Amino acid sequence: MLLDADTLRAQSRGCGILGAGGGGAPTIGLLAGLRALEVHGPASLVDLDDLPDDDLVLPIGMVGAPVVSIEKICNGAEGARIVRRVEAMTGRRVAALMASEIGGSNGLYPAAHAAALGIPVVDADGMGRAFPEMPQVSMEIAGISPSPCVMSDERGNVLTLDPADGQWLERLCRAVAVCFGGRAISSEYLMTVAEARTAAVRGTVSLAVRIGRAIAEASDDPVRALLDAVGGFRLIDGKVSDVERRVTGGFVRGSAQVEGLRADTGRLLRLELQNENLVALEDGLVVASVPDVISVVDTQTGGAVSTELLRYGQRVSVVAFPCDPVWRTDGGLALAGPRAFGYDFDYTPVEDLRACAA
Amino acid sequence: MLLDADTLRAQSRGCGILGAGGGGAPTIGLLAGLRALEVHGPASLVDLDDLPDDDLVLPIGMVGAPVVSIEKICNGAEGARIVRRVEAMTGRRVAALMASEIGGSNGLYPAAHAAALGIPVVDADGMGRAFPEMPQVSMEIAGISPSPCVMSDERGNVLTLDPADGQWLERLCRAVAVCFGGRAISSEYLMTVAEARTAAVRGTVSLAVRIGRAIAEASDDPVRALLDAVGGFRLIDGKVSDVERRVTGGFVRGSAQVEGLRADTGRLLRLELQNENLVALEDGLVVASVPDVISVVDTQTGGAVSTELLRYGQRVSVVAFPCDPVWRTDGGLALAGPRAFGYDFDYTPVEDLRACAA
Repeated sequence: MLLDADTLRAQSRGCGILGAGGGGAPTIGLLAGLRALEVHGPASLVDLDDLPDDDLVLPIGMVGAPVVSIEKICNGAEGARIVRRVEAMTGRRVAALMASEIGGSNGLYPAAHAAALGIPVVDADGMGRAFPEMPQVSMEIAGISPSPCVMSDERGNVLTLDPADGQWLERLCRAVAVCFGGRAISSEYLMTVAEARTAAVRGTVSLAVRIGRAIAEASDDPVRALLDAVGGFRLIDGKVSDVERRVTGGFVRGSAQVEGLRADTGRLLRLELQNENLVALEDGLVVASVPDVISVVDTQTGGAVSTELLRYGQRVSVVAFPCDPVWRTDGGLALAGPRAFGYDFDYTPVEDLRACAA
Repeated sequence: MLLDADTLRAQSRGCGILGAGGGGAPTIGLLAGLRALEVHGPASLVDLDDLPDDDLVLPIGMVGAPVVSIEKICNGAEGARIVRRVEAMTGRRVAALMASEIGGSNGLYPAAHAAALGIPVVDADGMGRAFPEMPQVSMEIAGISPSPCVMSDERGNVLTLDPADGQWLERLCRAVAVCFGGRAISSEYLMTVAEARTAAVRGTVSLAVRIGRAIAEASDDPVRALLDAVGGFRLIDGKVSDVERRVTGGFVRGSAQVEGLRADTGRLLRLELQNENLVALEDGLVVASVPDVISVVDTQTGGAVSTELLRYGQRVSVVAFPCDPVWRTDGGLALAGPRAFGYDFDYTPVEDLRACAA
């Protein structure tokens, strides 16, 4: 499949949904992808099964606060600079790029970088969604080393990090991203195709495209079409009645409240945010939580509203759907379950929570 | 010359004086040096004229807040880790180490690392004193690139930075040092021996040893012996009557006040600090300033009192002496003159200020 303009537009809608509010507003990644397409032509999307075992796959993405990334954009040279550095360090060619996270802009940047480099994008990512912290990727669960991590910015600064572990990856990358002004382009968990086949979450680029097409092609209720595409649940229809949001330590943190309208009048849903929507609460009870995906979408269009773009008065639906099974393993929950974010409750799958509520 | 225990002890006294209050308390660097000596035997001190032109000289030092470095010490493996990384990146052997700054602990660490590696230390450094910021070295004035910068900590984290320029070197290294807990070991401005001969400040290790011996061997007035050794001036004899100090952004910042005693009764000298003593003021007038060296010493022993160890009630003498001529050039003043630290006055050499005062 070629990542042409039509495909990228569909993918960007899907990446917005999979982003769970984070990963950066997909519009910015879409613009980067469309621009690279104009200049270099489209990148191709390939399945990991169609690449040689020993080829190198490089995950790439943005690290920082999404609210910064909508104003401080890339200049387009970061991806090539990072790939060249990785190639110089390893003495090997990078055969394909992969999104570190499929959610938000981060799902789209690889297409832009790959087009410029003339290499393909693999149909996979490290999350199947977006998460706020760097080691919250399936490669960490699979035991792939985060080193070398290579970071760059629009000014030409390049850093190579060999962090002692995933936690130090997060601390160092975050500090560097803050120093760069709130966001950086970063690559880590370099692996072979053979490793990626089991370590990555597969098929997520084509999933994003399918979700995007389902929303765009819906005749009357795009939220319904979205729920069908992801096997999800509608938590509430309403309007954003409160947003508390701050950028601190390289993250967007805060909360938002959605007040029910029409059939949901009288209900209040609270969302807690750290770049992504982490937890949805109603009457003090958890109705969905990480690692499951909680997304806020425009009720009329089904388009995702990322956490940094939430505004008082928006008419939205909040949806939730199951994460990739890797996040429901012990390793997955230790890395990205509620307790990993400081919450004092255990994870219950969203479908079980809905069954109880019903 | 061998950097044996007696030499290191003398050097540490001299490094304290040349540190202008900064560079880290020399005791810690001395302990590291003595320990490496016990395990590996002494490193040798060589002149740049005695090494082949094309050999690589690696400047190395601590970056961070000196007040942190007296509690959070090295584990001894950082130097070798950095040297191995530089060698892997360049494909060339590092022939000798050099202190990034001769002042404080930083003047002594190269002896410890070099002993462990079995390579010599060159009789030179990048400042002839200590300065708070990374690009405030003579190599920056000489146009040597700060890249690659390699940083490490006691946990085994390694970073390689190719900063866009000296200012980004400072921003990135400082952010990483803060992330590491307040200090890191860092190497930058890698150069050949031929480059170092004109780009470094030469003879400063042996100068530190000479100063240290002059103080230790003084029969009655060690401060007088110190002033003779450096061609310096006694600004005041008195006691520390006020210290305001905080650790912020990877620096120690603040001010101290010395109240005159005996012949200086009734006088007040104020010191402004950023890791180092930057400016000495009396009655609102500048009596000495960067880039000249302002050091606080124990009046009885002539031993330096670094900025992080200043305490109310200490009996001290404040001395000042001329910096290396490189700092009095336009390039030197732009990098480390009063205006480079945000002061709104031009530099006047300390000997001219003393001549006016007399």
